[in-house]
Amino acid sequence: MRITLLQRARLRDPTISAMCEEYRKRFRRYGQLDIREENKPRWPEGAWRILADERGDCLSSEAFAQQLARWSMLHGDLCIAIGDGDGHDADFATAAQTRISLSPMVFPHRLAHLLMVEQIYRAGCILAGHPYHHGS
Amino acid sequence: MRITLLQRARLRDPTISAMCEEYRKRFRRYGQLDIREENKPRWPEGAWRILADERGDCLSSEAFAQQLARWSMLHGDLCIAIGDGDGHDADFATAAQTRISLSPMVFPHRLAHLLMVEQIYRAGCILAGHPYHHGS
Repeated sequence: MRITLLQRARLRDPTISAMCEEYRKRFRRYGQLDIREENKPRWPEGAWRILADERGDCLSSEAFAQQLARWSMLHGDLCIAIGDGDGHDADFATAAQTRISLSPMVFPHRLAHLLMVEQIYRAGCILAGHPYHHGS
Repeated sequence: MRITLLQRARLRDPTISAMCEEYRKRFRRYGQLDIREENKPRWPEGAWRILADERGDCLSSEAFAQQLARWSMLHGDLCIAIGDGDGHDADFATAAQTRISLSPMVFPHRLAHLLMVEQIYRAGCILAGHPYHHGS
């Protein structure tokens, strides 16, 4: 599974960045996760475009894992984009192929980013039958 | 508004604790938030007992804010309990008067705790009309 996590604002918080990096490394056994921070994000060529947005489908961790596996099988590379305090640029958002949500609640950008990295790692564990999901 | 946030496991992560403390302090302008870590949590006498559980009602931040305001008006002191990796003790959970959820996803305990503190602070801002909710 190859996933790019794309976000507009820079994660300025070194602790949050370190926690993200830890989950990213642990995900290596299941696939490749690249984190890209861009001032003006662009969808990578050829990737399945997933917008994280509080109005998207709100899935359980298990359903999210199954969805990632299905999209990966059908479409190859995946890209998940997270907005910042101002949400997403309208043209960028319109070009998304699907929308998902971490919660109907609004979380601070830096925490939403961390949660998404953690849920991607958790998805890898769920799909591989690793006990992390029930012990964390 | 007086809220006790009750949790079983100790937050061993000093960075997460510091972030929680920051939100707790900022909440002071709206009410009182006490954080209690207990090995065997007990519901405080007389408080409205709210269990945070991924099977509870999943609200938007606005709906959560309105719900806290309504409960506070009707019942006075509120207590929100967060489980750890093993969830909640069965007897303790049965004694809850209502259940809420941050998300249908399972988050790590330490992050769920931080998100709950942040949502309580956000609820205060929403009820007071403070712009934090739309700028974070």
